[in-house]
Amino acid sequence: MISDKMKDLVCGSSVVRAMFEEGKNMAAKYGKENVYDYSLGNPSVNPPIEVTEAIKRVLTENDPMYVHGYMNNSGYEAVRDKVAKSLNKRFGTSFSGKNILMTVGAAGGLNVALKTLLNPGDEVITFSPYFGEYKNYVSNFDGKLIALPPNETDGFRPDPEALAQAITAKTRAIIVNNPNNPTGIVYSEKDIIAIADVLKKKSEEHGAPIYLISDEPYRELAYDGVDVPYLTKYYDNTIVGYSFSKSLSLPGERIGYLVIPDEADGSEELLAAANVANRILGFVNAPSLMQLAVAECLDCKAAVDIYDKNRIKLYGELTSMGFTCVKPEGAFYLFMKTPEDDKAFSNEAKKLHLLLVPGSSFGCPGYVRIAYCVDYDMIVRSLPAFKELSAHYGLSK
Amino acid sequence: MISDKMKDLVCGSSVVRAMFEEGKNMAAKYGKENVYDYSLGNPSVNPPIEVTEAIKRVLTENDPMYVHGYMNNSGYEAVRDKVAKSLNKRFGTSFSGKNILMTVGAAGGLNVALKTLLNPGDEVITFSPYFGEYKNYVSNFDGKLIALPPNETDGFRPDPEALAQAITAKTRAIIVNNPNNPTGIVYSEKDIIAIADVLKKKSEEHGAPIYLISDEPYRELAYDGVDVPYLTKYYDNTIVGYSFSKSLSLPGERIGYLVIPDEADGSEELLAAANVANRILGFVNAPSLMQLAVAECLDCKAAVDIYDKNRIKLYGELTSMGFTCVKPEGAFYLFMKTPEDDKAFSNEAKKLHLLLVPGSSFGCPGYVRIAYCVDYDMIVRSLPAFKELSAHYGLSK
Repeated sequence: MISDKMKDLVCGSSVVRAMFEEGKNMAAKYGKENVYDYSLGNPSVNPPIEVTEAIKRVLTENDPMYVHGYMNNSGYEAVRDKVAKSLNKRFGTSFSGKNILMTVGAAGGLNVALKTLLNPGDEVITFSPYFGEYKNYVSNFDGKLIALPPNETDGFRPDPEALAQAITAKTRAIIVNNPNNPTGIVYSEKDIIAIADVLKKKSEEHGAPIYLISDEPYRELAYDGVDVPYLTKYYDNTIVGYSFSKSLSLPGERIGYLVIPDEADGSEELLAAANVANRILGFVNAPSLMQLAVAECLDCKAAVDIYDKNRIKLYGELTSMGFTCVKPEGAFYLFMKTPEDDKAFSNEAKKLHLLLVPGSSFGCPGYVRIAYCVDYDMIVRSLPAFKELSAHYGLSK
Repeated sequence: MISDKMKDLVCGSSVVRAMFEEGKNMAAKYGKENVYDYSLGNPSVNPPIEVTEAIKRVLTENDPMYVHGYMNNSGYEAVRDKVAKSLNKRFGTSFSGKNILMTVGAAGGLNVALKTLLNPGDEVITFSPYFGEYKNYVSNFDGKLIALPPNETDGFRPDPEALAQAITAKTRAIIVNNPNNPTGIVYSEKDIIAIADVLKKKSEEHGAPIYLISDEPYRELAYDGVDVPYLTKYYDNTIVGYSFSKSLSLPGERIGYLVIPDEADGSEELLAAANVANRILGFVNAPSLMQLAVAECLDCKAAVDIYDKNRIKLYGELTSMGFTCVKPEGAFYLFMKTPEDDKAFSNEAKKLHLLLVPGSSFGCPGYVRIAYCVDYDMIVRSLPAFKELSAHYGLSK
């Protein structure tokens, strides 16, 4: 009864989401404290108290028809101005409100950007491992996601050579995700400059711009003082997709924005098209109350030190058990090598009530993703299970 | 720089939205009190006080990670259960929570339903005049909207004969909008039975179900005690799209739901696909706080008597000035015949600072839509301009 496209999608639906649902079922069966659900990137840190206060203040101080009414499909002008000013202050950019389009989270923003750019058959390149939804988002507009092989030998950094070779006349955009889901690594300025150089050269060769879509829901989650470069400063044809899901722990609220800078080729046209795309894809506009609330909290962020504590603990414990892990510098994911096929390993882990997502869901078999946005206590409780897993594979030193 | 599809869309973008933006500019230029903006269906009645109270209560009484976190892509189970129970109580249906999928407004819901159903080239039939966005929503999935000619002689009621003739082997769904935007009429039980009979017969003939998508954002806005039939009771293969935008005056919040009943062919498959479609279209889930808040307000509605007062006043005044109007029974739109080409008439009206949307935007030239979800005072202030317009066309008796 359903469309052909959806048939494939329902069958091969999100492994992450399926595991999240399974985790809830297992928790009901075995008790919540006996299931170690590392599946979903659902923040475990409370939103800053300022968010709740801002929501209540917005409700109290404004006309409810302003707070809950329609506005320009790109968002409230006042909110967009505040976002632009905040970015300019933080990153030395020079955006104005018109460069900002408020979106239904980063997922909404990416779909708006792709609807704006893609003709059927256009190619969008990304580096493996990558957030599995990119494939679906690109497919929504009959584009083709080209996933470059994982650069395992160089710590999963983006490989500019591989990028250059993969670009064809059909390449319309590339998507980078920094800090990265699922590896937790942060692309450095050097990485970004190398990518930008390739894109500049290839855009010139092909006589058409290749857009760089920077998916940045994890921007505020970086550790050890690592710098997360702001990409519009390195490459003019950059579209930034941001979300408050992780920075303010509001994933359910679906609030984020796109940045389309004046420097981008066809900026005016892109902004007009993105405004229309936001409307006709059915978003219409980003949720209104939440737009007004986050605009009051642009200088806040959730307590990242809690994730940092989890990161240090888990990385330390797992490596000392003999597991090989990519050391995360950002986001809240740990990418761990599996001693056998990642799906088989994930199933073995599940027997011990450890829910770990196979790397093949991210285009990178041989690893699992461990989302450590969980209670510290759950990490501690889960260690014996990890130890048993390590012993099962003879990894313990 | 933008995709070919978007090029056409940006050029022919929403007349309603363009007029809404123009109205804001005119208000800045001439003063808000001197512009009579009847363009957009933006509720003019405050949300019930219960909504603000519910939002504050939800924030106060729950764990913020529950309130703002991820949940099943179809929505909170508790919210879906409450919606199902409320519908059962009101309409004698027998839904359970699993039949409900919380969506980013009705626009989000329609896109989810269409993504679920349509293969490229599939046809979706609707009755003119129709909400212009249907065309864009269907086109998002490479379907084709077939708009039946306006049934002007029979008060814009749906013509079952015309429907029967338009159905082909490619017809996958029809969309009805009741109460209707832009005519304000309400399809009666008789109308609905006639439609259902055609769909049953044709589904059987073609050996495949034709789904009836009922777009119901105006359900609670009905006047003079008119009954708005609940369509799942008349036709099994019905998918209902609902929104709280008008009933609770929350259009900016993007909150609504789909109903996919057990009786629908392939119900389980449809529900699973709609869940995935909601995720991958980039909605992910309906905004979380708002889900929890509206679930507390299912028995509330905005003060419809205010719209009713506007309706009576405007219909009375305009007809007495010699204009020919469809008498609205629901929604907050008045559909008025134009004495010349509707676009020319709309421009003439604009000179008098009256913003009226040409019927051709709804597939029905020769009319304008007047959205009377405005301040009563604005209606009163606008009457001299309408009078002048009437005199200009020599309509005054």
